[in-house]
Amino acid sequence: MTTAPIGAGVLDLLRLFKGNDGAADAYAATQLETAKAIEPTLRAFEVLPTDVTRKPGPLSGIPVGIKDIIATTDMVTTNGSAVYKDHVPAADAWVVERLRNLGATIFGKTVSTEFAWRHPGPTTNPWNPRHTPGGSSSGSAAAVAAGLVPLALGTQTLGSVVRPAAFNGVVGFKPSFGAIPRSGVHPLSPSLDHVGFFARRVDDVAYALSLLMGSSDSDAHGRPGPTFEVSVDHGLQTLAAPRLAVVRFAKWDKAEIEARALFDASLARLRDAGAIVEELQLPELDRTNWDAVNTILTSEGAEIFADLIARFPDRTSDKLKNLVELGQAHSATSYLAAKSLQAKLRSDFTTRMAGFDAVLTLPAFGEAPEGLGYTGDAEYCAPWTLLGVPALSLPAGFGKNHLPLGLQVVGAYRQDLHLLRVAKWVEAVLAFSPGLPAVKS
Amino acid sequence: MTTAPIGAGVLDLLRLFKGNDGAADAYAATQLETAKAIEPTLRAFEVLPTDVTRKPGPLSGIPVGIKDIIATTDMVTTNGSAVYKDHVPAADAWVVERLRNLGATIFGKTVSTEFAWRHPGPTTNPWNPRHTPGGSSSGSAAAVAAGLVPLALGTQTLGSVVRPAAFNGVVGFKPSFGAIPRSGVHPLSPSLDHVGFFARRVDDVAYALSLLMGSSDSDAHGRPGPTFEVSVDHGLQTLAAPRLAVVRFAKWDKAEIEARALFDASLARLRDAGAIVEELQLPELDRTNWDAVNTILTSEGAEIFADLIARFPDRTSDKLKNLVELGQAHSATSYLAAKSLQAKLRSDFTTRMAGFDAVLTLPAFGEAPEGLGYTGDAEYCAPWTLLGVPALSLPAGFGKNHLPLGLQVVGAYRQDLHLLRVAKWVEAVLAFSPGLPAVKS
Repeated sequence: MTTAPIGAGVLDLLRLFKGNDGAADAYAATQLETAKAIEPTLRAFEVLPTDVTRKPGPLSGIPVGIKDIIATTDMVTTNGSAVYKDHVPAADAWVVERLRNLGATIFGKTVSTEFAWRHPGPTTNPWNPRHTPGGSSSGSAAAVAAGLVPLALGTQTLGSVVRPAAFNGVVGFKPSFGAIPRSGVHPLSPSLDHVGFFARRVDDVAYALSLLMGSSDSDAHGRPGPTFEVSVDHGLQTLAAPRLAVVRFAKWDKAEIEARALFDASLARLRDAGAIVEELQLPELDRTNWDAVNTILTSEGAEIFADLIARFPDRTSDKLKNLVELGQAHSATSYLAAKSLQAKLRSDFTTRMAGFDAVLTLPAFGEAPEGLGYTGDAEYCAPWTLLGVPALSLPAGFGKNHLPLGLQVVGAYRQDLHLLRVAKWVEAVLAFSPGLPAVKS
Repeated sequence: MTTAPIGAGVLDLLRLFKGNDGAADAYAATQLETAKAIEPTLRAFEVLPTDVTRKPGPLSGIPVGIKDIIATTDMVTTNGSAVYKDHVPAADAWVVERLRNLGATIFGKTVSTEFAWRHPGPTTNPWNPRHTPGGSSSGSAAAVAAGLVPLALGTQTLGSVVRPAAFNGVVGFKPSFGAIPRSGVHPLSPSLDHVGFFARRVDDVAYALSLLMGSSDSDAHGRPGPTFEVSVDHGLQTLAAPRLAVVRFAKWDKAEIEARALFDASLARLRDAGAIVEELQLPELDRTNWDAVNTILTSEGAEIFADLIARFPDRTSDKLKNLVELGQAHSATSYLAAKSLQAKLRSDFTTRMAGFDAVLTLPAFGEAPEGLGYTGDAEYCAPWTLLGVPALSLPAGFGKNHLPLGLQVVGAYRQDLHLLRVAKWVEAVLAFSPGLPAVKS
């Protein structure tokens, strides 16, 4: 019996499991054992599964970590909040129900910051427990990086998938706004909230998206792009050398010198491999970035959380209270102007990107910051979240503290498949894998 | 050659035109002549068509009036505003393009109040030119009532289809929110704006809806209900006697005594015909009605019109300026709370209506008010618009000034076909037609 290596990807595993039930069963048991062993250091999970029995389906035998703001009927859903410490929802989230129907093994609930906002959980970075794993999808990113699950769900409202993916040396993908219904996912800012995921390879992310796209009547934003299929045997079809636009935001000098150097070295390698790589100025994103994003996010957050902090002042964080306070200061018209601007920027971006297959930029300023109190800055992620365009972070190398650095690839709205094919091409050229971190048991 | 009577409905005409091109051509010419003759009194049109040549399609030979906030490339689109007096858009509205593809004859642009808000246009009520036709879809309602067109497009943000339909003695229908895409329709309040229409019979309205439902990428709200077909020969399939809920709003005594008496007499006739008719209390609609509606409408209106009134203070009305001023006073969180309430009420209403086929209520306080300065009150329409549920007004009789009175039939969200079948049953039982008003040439 061939056994699956820790750190194998989704498609690797599915190929291995084909006609090899023993391997699948052994894998699940090993993963659970390993998870239990390193949890005292990693703290990626709110709760681990008790049952990892395989079910039939296209994700049979694949353990999937579920960010703990996503409702599950058989496990606690804390939303990262003391208020919901023992909460078990009456219905699965749409995406959890879909995963169950696909035969996936729901492999526990991963730590989220409080309601996916800024108050952090206990998760450590698997590459160095003195550093943050990033947030808000902290546990999902760390669990994939540590090889405990080949796939995990996250959510992104500013940079909560792409940034922790970069900090943990895994692939993180936020699809186009609305591609995956959010029914049963605790909202933070409905105009910005996206469901996304973490995996080890671009092909795995593409396979997951092909299975998880959908529309839901109870999520009016669910407007998936065109559906597609991904072959388990071959992954995504390859692409000819793409034409890539390099976006360096106005605040580019906030990035660490090693991150900028690695970014430039990566561009050179992509160019050598045949890509056309050109600089693209998007000053409208620099100008409008935080104003519009903050107005939308804090206004919507204030409406969602005001009652909760009034009822539970002792069980809600200062960071959440600050969010509500900021949001309550906005007028309806400034909120609506920000929403109109969002729609305009999204629609203009398709034109701005015309002639390019994807945008390349940094996912974060650099390595994961030291300490667990601050999950990092979303400066280079938030514009793409505002636009609702697909964005993916790939591992690209290491920084000066031997913590991972990433490369962000961004596509046009609802052109997720094309973006993923470009990302696979970039991944193949960079041919970089950070390997598995050695997390202390 | 059989000629079509003025006042014939859409399906009547289509049956008559079958294999009878001469009748269709004669009809269009006669309609245009009649329109020109009575326009000096009626003032229903901003512009009449120059070309009424028939095109092939399921609406071949059917003249359709287009409310003048809906974009047309071959005719002026004034939006009822002095600012847009000579404006000709570069693209047809989605619904106009669809009508052209269906072979309809675009029979001119009908008068709207300024941007479908309260500042009225010159249209008179065809039953008595000293009275308002209602608004904001004033011209469309009057043109159908006068027999100039068998079908006309309107829009409703509070009661702008249902109320003028009642005031003019025609059928007015506002489908479920999102059923007809609004691309190219000037917005007033995107959370409340609906495209609807006026016709002479329920079957005509059903036929039009079956052809005009759709979804549009540029209108994210476009989420049509299930599609259906209506037979030109037989209209909608008939229904067994329905179970009807009677909703009398808290401010029921604002209704004229004749309107209430006619309403009660209509209920008695429906009961005699076999319907189960029961009172239903919906206090949540009385409690929340104007607060939530006004917060949403004025906030969104303020964002849309603030720049315009700043740029054109002399060409915008005090009513529009007042709308903007009211909207600018709202906070983002009160706006978002109103939006959340809207979603909750809509979702709860399906449960509240369970066991009933439709709701019956009044469409307006009574007859069309005297004078052209005030288009009437939307008190009994606004709750259904907030909910986004399908609502239809049927002619039911006359009031003390021999002006029409209507009956409003309301259905569950996205159950438009069922609501229309109930309305057809009610129409058959009431068996009332106001006939054609004699408008002075």
